[in-house]
Amino acid sequence: MILNTPIDMHLHLREGKMLKDVIPYSAKQFAAAVIMPNLVPPVDNRQRLESYKEEILANSENFTPLMNVFMREYTEDELLDLAEDIFAIKLYPAGITTNSEGGVKSIENVYPVLEIMQELNIPLSVHGETNGFVLDREREFAVVYEKLARDFPKLKIIMEHVGSAELLDLLDRYDNLYATVTLHHLLLTLDDLIGGALNPHNFCKPVIKTPKDRDAIQKFVKSGHKKVMFGSDSAPHPIKNKLKGAAGLFSAPVILPALAEFFDGDIETFQKFISDNARENFNLNVPEKKVEIIEEEWTAPYIVGEVKPMFAGRVFRYKVL
Amino acid sequence: MILNTPIDMHLHLREGKMLKDVIPYSAKQFAAAVIMPNLVPPVDNRQRLESYKEEILANSENFTPLMNVFMREYTEDELLDLAEDIFAIKLYPAGITTNSEGGVKSIENVYPVLEIMQELNIPLSVHGETNGFVLDREREFAVVYEKLARDFPKLKIIMEHVGSAELLDLLDRYDNLYATVTLHHLLLTLDDLIGGALNPHNFCKPVIKTPKDRDAIQKFVKSGHKKVMFGSDSAPHPIKNKLKGAAGLFSAPVILPALAEFFDGDIETFQKFISDNARENFNLNVPEKKVEIIEEEWTAPYIVGEVKPMFAGRVFRYKVL
Repeated sequence: MILNTPIDMHLHLREGKMLKDVIPYSAKQFAAAVIMPNLVPPVDNRQRLESYKEEILANSENFTPLMNVFMREYTEDELLDLAEDIFAIKLYPAGITTNSEGGVKSIENVYPVLEIMQELNIPLSVHGETNGFVLDREREFAVVYEKLARDFPKLKIIMEHVGSAELLDLLDRYDNLYATVTLHHLLLTLDDLIGGALNPHNFCKPVIKTPKDRDAIQKFVKSGHKKVMFGSDSAPHPIKNKLKGAAGLFSAPVILPALAEFFDGDIETFQKFISDNARENFNLNVPEKKVEIIEEEWTAPYIVGEVKPMFAGRVFRYKVL
Repeated sequence: MILNTPIDMHLHLREGKMLKDVIPYSAKQFAAAVIMPNLVPPVDNRQRLESYKEEILANSENFTPLMNVFMREYTEDELLDLAEDIFAIKLYPAGITTNSEGGVKSIENVYPVLEIMQELNIPLSVHGETNGFVLDREREFAVVYEKLARDFPKLKIIMEHVGSAELLDLLDRYDNLYATVTLHHLLLTLDDLIGGALNPHNFCKPVIKTPKDRDAIQKFVKSGHKKVMFGSDSAPHPIKNKLKGAAGLFSAPVILPALAEFFDGDIETFQKFISDNARENFNLNVPEKKVEIIEEEWTAPYIVGEVKPMFAGRVFRYKVL
């Protein structure tokens, strides 16, 4: 099968050697990716944005980075200057995810920024979790998504890496809410993290949840819902950091083979999920790139640099040419 | 305060150097403990039982090990021979917990054994989890407890290390069901395992669960319910094994200081939970031992041999003299 212009709507590439190690897997499988800005220091100004984009372009070919910047209290002038060169602004609730200690504590602090984003048609990307009990955090955040959707009806808001089924129900209630779904929230549950021996390699935020959540997410994705888009949240950490409890799965190497198995021949829905929905929802202008997947046994890498990928060593029925 | 003859109704002591490292903490705080038999090879015959009991006695003073043996298809002669020297027989559903790969796959296979145990008044100790979704395993096992309780109305059955609130409701419905509660299921939730960075040191089976479960367990314990007994399930693993995903918390060093804080002056209920309920439910004949706890700051050990204890380094308001 041939996919037209696959886009990963949520990708962590890191910097330096790690970036060099991991970027080939995304560049091979995707035409473009939305690049997350939670580095240390974060990508939150023109200089950092440009140098990070240059680093990505210097280490890849035929791959378009759609840059995000980290939310802070930007001025209107800053946003006017950034608008043409970014895809969205990423909002992390404080202290919930990797390197997000600088996330915005009270969302109301950035309401002036959201006003301007709405005017300038800059989407808002959100890691939606409260500080509540770990399994309730996404569900509890639904009221925040609803408030944002109502308060900024023209602002396009992306609920990132949805792991709780309840959030998906918001998509049909608010025109301006969208969702990304990761490979791991689509396929895994807490059984893969704590069901046997503890498996730190499957630890991420939001945590993978119940079979009920996973099944609801699968159903939504299989339905071809226009507002659901693939975003891997592929987030490489050196193995030694994973063993110390770092959150994030490095799924990049296995995305298309795993999704090809998941869609099991339904290329039409696969194409929507991996590209068309995103391009239509956000009028993305990404150079066309065809990616061919053939039915041939392929073994996922055991290790990439210092990182253990998701599904390391698993044999897939599909291979990316 | 002075506790009379505290008993830990569920303890893993291991063997060899590990046993020598960990046993002083139990022997200091407890008059007796029910010793779990899931070693490799398991304690499931007279020779192994005797040598293991000797090892425990040789490494402790003024401490009574109440020995359990591992469930298998014992003959009546074997049980007659063992009856006087064991407290209970431990049933692990296959493959669910540490070294329980030899657990009984179908409980019906051991119905003849349960018949004889009932006649001989040997209690049954059960790790009650199905092979279902990790958070549902205890709840799903309730029907097995109910069936066992009905099929063997004179057999005393202990639901070990209860982590799901629903199981406690069975205590008032079946005369012959009892429960042990650990320190970690009493005090922790999944937030302590996966709420921040992943914390492998708080990983155990059954997993610590929701605030709702923890709160219900606390309420039951505070009520002084006669059929609820303390059983630590303290289960030391070398740190290197914990980092590889081994299940179990080594709570032994901190039990009485942590419980003293939990009961916060309600010595009467503390005494029932830590001793009286067990002695009355099972007519235990344990030599009396007074354990004094004083109100004085005490810091939990950071490390014991190769093991990181629960609440390592935490400062408690109480100290065991």
